[in-house]
Amino acid sequence: MHFPDKLRQKQADNNSLLCIGLDTDVARIPEHIRSEPDAVLAFNRAIIRATADIACCYKLNTAFYEQYGAEGFSILAETLAAMPAGMPCIADAKRGDIGNTSAAYAQAFFRQMPFDALTVNPYLGGDSVEPFLREAEAFIFLLALTSNKGSADFQRLVSAGKPIYRHVVERSLEWGDPVKIGFVVGATHPQELEEVRSLAPHSVFLIPGVGTQGGDAAATVRANGRGPALINVSRSVLYASSGEDFADRARDAALAFRDSFNKHLAE
Amino acid sequence: MHFPDKLRQKQADNNSLLCIGLDTDVARIPEHIRSEPDAVLAFNRAIIRATADIACCYKLNTAFYEQYGAEGFSILAETLAAMPAGMPCIADAKRGDIGNTSAAYAQAFFRQMPFDALTVNPYLGGDSVEPFLREAEAFIFLLALTSNKGSADFQRLVSAGKPIYRHVVERSLEWGDPVKIGFVVGATHPQELEEVRSLAPHSVFLIPGVGTQGGDAAATVRANGRGPALINVSRSVLYASSGEDFADRARDAALAFRDSFNKHLAE
Repeated sequence: MHFPDKLRQKQADNNSLLCIGLDTDVARIPEHIRSEPDAVLAFNRAIIRATADIACCYKLNTAFYEQYGAEGFSILAETLAAMPAGMPCIADAKRGDIGNTSAAYAQAFFRQMPFDALTVNPYLGGDSVEPFLREAEAFIFLLALTSNKGSADFQRLVSAGKPIYRHVVERSLEWGDPVKIGFVVGATHPQELEEVRSLAPHSVFLIPGVGTQGGDAAATVRANGRGPALINVSRSVLYASSGEDFADRARDAALAFRDSFNKHLAE
Repeated sequence: MHFPDKLRQKQADNNSLLCIGLDTDVARIPEHIRSEPDAVLAFNRAIIRATADIACCYKLNTAFYEQYGAEGFSILAETLAAMPAGMPCIADAKRGDIGNTSAAYAQAFFRQMPFDALTVNPYLGGDSVEPFLREAEAFIFLLALTSNKGSADFQRLVSAGKPIYRHVVERSLEWGDPVKIGFVVGATHPQELEEVRSLAPHSVFLIPGVGTQGGDAAATVRANGRGPALINVSRSVLYASSGEDFADRARDAALAFRDSFNKHLAE
């Protein structure tokens, strides 16, 4: 099933906008499972078991797996394989390269590992994105305005009266099937989130930055309005406790985020 | 040894500006070795053996390895391990993410796999680059103006009278130790290469796009002038022949590129 449909289904089933980011750092997982050989995989499986009826999606940031080399890449694939049926899953890899190289990345993240969606860095332009769109079932999230402070350095530079992130959104909506492209807009920029939402009312937004990074849940939900969106939380769920109760506390944290998003949505 | 010193040494030893891009695609390697289980690794080793006294550096584009999953990541690491002593090697991964995530990528490409340099996408700004610069021996190449057509979409947008790629170069030269940052500028844009060289006369440039992509060797060498640079060629060397003589023909092609760069340099 294509990502937007799969997402819509899971959001309805679990009454949830919450995406959980499995940015698993072995130094931060509870000591009692850190000694297991596949500690990261064991941790991920426990988090998924504890939250799969609360989240609408999981996002795996590839950096946290690549740091362990080939073994980490195996854990990435095994975590993907551990997803319950019907659960959408995003590879947060922020890839993007010239044509024949992007085609190899498409092979990596849509075929070799069957992710539902991939984050893509737009800096290389339209022909770097096109190979991803050629995949029948593929969906990409283009970085528009990221959650970090450094987003001001280039993404906010103004050209022809508009910031670069706005050029990215407007230009990419012309590149092909808009049901295959969504946007990353950080929760740390609610005003700009509202602006981008008005430009792309029907596009799926991946919104990181609530929790540890300081984005406000109420402002985020208000700014996004009724558009299709996932609000990602990583560290505030994963590391809710460093004790043996880590999975239960992650579940509590996920429930609190989900319910708070829903409450603000109803306001 | 730090990348610029290692590069300077190898460029002197081999009298060469030629960087060979090991963008190895199993569909394009000669049939007689394609049946070997580790065909990509066998091919890479043969190319390295045939060209290590001609090239000044090798560049491994991670996409071509990730497309085979964890096994591909192993081949990437084994190819790096197959480099002769003193040969600089670049991970062409075009990574870049928020702070704690870029730190994980730094771990992946400077520690887990001890590359000498990494290509980094600047779209996320200064705080996404900083974790790479914290590594004592690290060197990064920031994408400025890439070799593909799509580089016109965002990299050439003009803000405050200057194209974005120029903002990237100027801003990043203020971010910290300039001996740790080089730039990627495509050979397909000789005029802009000359412009960027005048902005950053002492920075190392990684110049892709000669060969299959159509960049002209003479124009490239002229535009770069006397600045420290590597001119990358991938497909025109790797796939010079699809027969049993592939390594000899790759050597011939590499020699022809190296000598042509040197001839233009002497002009």
